[in-house]
Amino acid sequence: MTTTLNHTHDVKARSWLESANAPGSDFPIQNLPFCVFRRQGAGDVPRCGIAIGDRIVDVAKAAASFTRPALEAAMACGNTTLNELMGLAPSTLSALRSQLFNLLSRGTTTGRDLIEAAMVPIPYADLLMPVRVGGYTDFFASIHHATNAGRLFRPDQPLLPNYKYVPVGYNGRAASIQIGKTPVNRPYGQLRKPGTDAPGFMPCEKLDHEVELGIFIGKGSVQGEPISVDDAWDHIFGVCLLNDWSARDVQAWEAQPLGPFLAKSFATGISPWIITAEALVPYRVQPAARPDGDPAPLPHLVGEADQALGAMHILIDAHLASQRMRANAQQAARLSRSDSATLYWTPGQMIAHHTSNGSFLQTGDLLGSGTISGPDDTSLGSLLEITRGGSQPFKLPSGEERGFLEDGDELTLSGFCERPGFARIGFGECRSTILPALPVNKNSPS
Amino acid sequence: MTTTLNHTHDVKARSWLESANAPGSDFPIQNLPFCVFRRQGAGDVPRCGIAIGDRIVDVAKAAASFTRPALEAAMACGNTTLNELMGLAPSTLSALRSQLFNLLSRGTTTGRDLIEAAMVPIPYADLLMPVRVGGYTDFFASIHHATNAGRLFRPDQPLLPNYKYVPVGYNGRAASIQIGKTPVNRPYGQLRKPGTDAPGFMPCEKLDHEVELGIFIGKGSVQGEPISVDDAWDHIFGVCLLNDWSARDVQAWEAQPLGPFLAKSFATGISPWIITAEALVPYRVQPAARPDGDPAPLPHLVGEADQALGAMHILIDAHLASQRMRANAQQAARLSRSDSATLYWTPGQMIAHHTSNGSFLQTGDLLGSGTISGPDDTSLGSLLEITRGGSQPFKLPSGEERGFLEDGDELTLSGFCERPGFARIGFGECRSTILPALPVNKNSPS
Repeated sequence: MTTTLNHTHDVKARSWLESANAPGSDFPIQNLPFCVFRRQGAGDVPRCGIAIGDRIVDVAKAAASFTRPALEAAMACGNTTLNELMGLAPSTLSALRSQLFNLLSRGTTTGRDLIEAAMVPIPYADLLMPVRVGGYTDFFASIHHATNAGRLFRPDQPLLPNYKYVPVGYNGRAASIQIGKTPVNRPYGQLRKPGTDAPGFMPCEKLDHEVELGIFIGKGSVQGEPISVDDAWDHIFGVCLLNDWSARDVQAWEAQPLGPFLAKSFATGISPWIITAEALVPYRVQPAARPDGDPAPLPHLVGEADQALGAMHILIDAHLASQRMRANAQQAARLSRSDSATLYWTPGQMIAHHTSNGSFLQTGDLLGSGTISGPDDTSLGSLLEITRGGSQPFKLPSGEERGFLEDGDELTLSGFCERPGFARIGFGECRSTILPALPVNKNSPS
Repeated sequence: MTTTLNHTHDVKARSWLESANAPGSDFPIQNLPFCVFRRQGAGDVPRCGIAIGDRIVDVAKAAASFTRPALEAAMACGNTTLNELMGLAPSTLSALRSQLFNLLSRGTTTGRDLIEAAMVPIPYADLLMPVRVGGYTDFFASIHHATNAGRLFRPDQPLLPNYKYVPVGYNGRAASIQIGKTPVNRPYGQLRKPGTDAPGFMPCEKLDHEVELGIFIGKGSVQGEPISVDDAWDHIFGVCLLNDWSARDVQAWEAQPLGPFLAKSFATGISPWIITAEALVPYRVQPAARPDGDPAPLPHLVGEADQALGAMHILIDAHLASQRMRANAQQAARLSRSDSATLYWTPGQMIAHHTSNGSFLQTGDLLGSGTISGPDDTSLGSLLEITRGGSQPFKLPSGEERGFLEDGDELTLSGFCERPGFARIGFGECRSTILPALPVNKNSPS
């Protein structure tokens, strides 16, 4: 399991690019997250890049700076998605990171010209879907979220009997994944309003966000050869922010007995930056102990390394700014701060479970963590939970209230890792605005 | 909506290839289904082909026989999957069918040499996955199946309140789709045995088949522009047989509250032949009338053309042959005959629903119908239903009994369309053998 610290994690390291050294920068030299971008206005094709400070390095353009095996990875950055790169051996990816780190380090002169010539300021780049996603699985790994959401539907039995045994997940629609900056039109859907017998087809009235992490699979696996819990991190390319937009009223009506479908498939936002598994090493932590009385996981979901450092300590904030707040230049209101270390299941357990029936994972598959909620009221990862199903509206500094999202609202996820003795690294943002429902169907109510 | 009959549907047409004219041939000249194949032993790359009689035509190899616009479609058959071809305009595909029909017709001499030189006997071809499947959605469109399956879990309320309003569906795992000939290893999974408190991880004990049709999307659609019920057939490339292998005991334990996941993701079989929407035109029928008292579908799920000819009359047989039966050269036993005309929801309604929230479909997406069961005991599309959850075993002619599938069992789906005044066209087979569970995980029980 990838848990080795090396010189790329050195908190004292600095870059010759001063913007990377600014306190609070999401992209210091210890981070180096991947993206896919296109230089604005130049008619360029998409390329794979690495973020540092306020720049993106067009890695393939600087390929001559690298030696084998990093060179192979640098060349793969000439593609329009990260998929080829993601399928390379972790050691090759690590070599690229190491050489990039050295090339960008303060004091380095050799090769600096070439790297500088391959840099694009982030504001001059369009950030694009970084990965061609094959399969998208969304888990349900936060026991706090599962309990909070379950309580609204089943007060007597918030948590179902399988929860503490099965890392529950379901297949999402891969085509729904989009870069978070893309606006989201309020979806139409079938829903049954309280007090009515029959459903109607109308714009969603309970539109919600969900604070999640997305875990991208690097090296794939083979049918019939499950990935063990302790090998799982060798198959993780990196992690992004994920907003699993949800139409709660549609979901409540459609999801029995086969699970959510159209309530989720209209849009799923991800941040454009993928923080690599290697950059996350310092922020790996021991999973939270299971409460007394909880069953031990079944043996195929247990691993020594996973029990030691299988969880990730990533903090994710959700902020909301209404149209009125933005017009008045009011700061966005923080809805929540989630910590992925509070999840009941680790990424290793999710991956081992996913392949435990003999099925395989592919390079470019995306696993969502499920909504990350913590034990207290400031760490609830959806409005459903924050407002108790809309019954206790959230008060905005503008004087407005929100049960669920309104048209014009802007929802932003941001995330970071920090740990004493290590750098702070950031995830950037996953930010989208809600637009009104389109008159979507010629048979829709007008 | 594509409902026009033309000369390619003429029941009197015959081919100069005599095997196509044999009574009972699945692939007469009126059919012309697509596949992807590779000539055995020649180191050939995969190619797109058309079946006729006992041959496959390597269409791109005979491209010089075609004129525009069919030529464009013939050239697209040089790919290793059908995706490029499927994305072409229905009129272009229709032109290819028309010219192929003429080239293969008895009496035709011009171009016959080229076509004959491009033919491969089916037994000398490896049939491959025909489509790179982007999204896979499985519906639940048979009210008989929904009722039968629901009764086993909820005797008081077999059918949930949403069933008659929502064409219920969920996302399947696209990577699970494989050609039916591939053997299926019994999956492992978590399951809770009756009378026990805690689950175990072990090979599935209730392995089942499901008789379905697979509907391949040809022309894709655009986010925010739902496909209307009556336009839906313009987006259907064709139809295949689909066996949605299901681990019932795993499903019962894992599926709450987010639906089936690993109980289905170990394998989903499809037949290698895709019967085109145009070949199916004569077998389009009026959907069965909703029983008295059932609500009308909501307006966005209603279309004039769909109400007239929105359903398909396709008969699908499921046969089972145990290892012992095959060793004794006993014929397979017929488990069921399903008719897709008994479905509660039409393909048009599934597609309109799928896009009604604003999301889009892509070329190569696959929609499963859900298990197709009819009203009587000979038309039950799963062992779950046939054996009432395993409690009333099915008797095989070998004297063996089956509650669910055993290792060594061979399950075959076959299908055909017939209608007075039109040819009989067949779907070929989706046939697989069940192999024992692999010792799938180093932490598995040995």
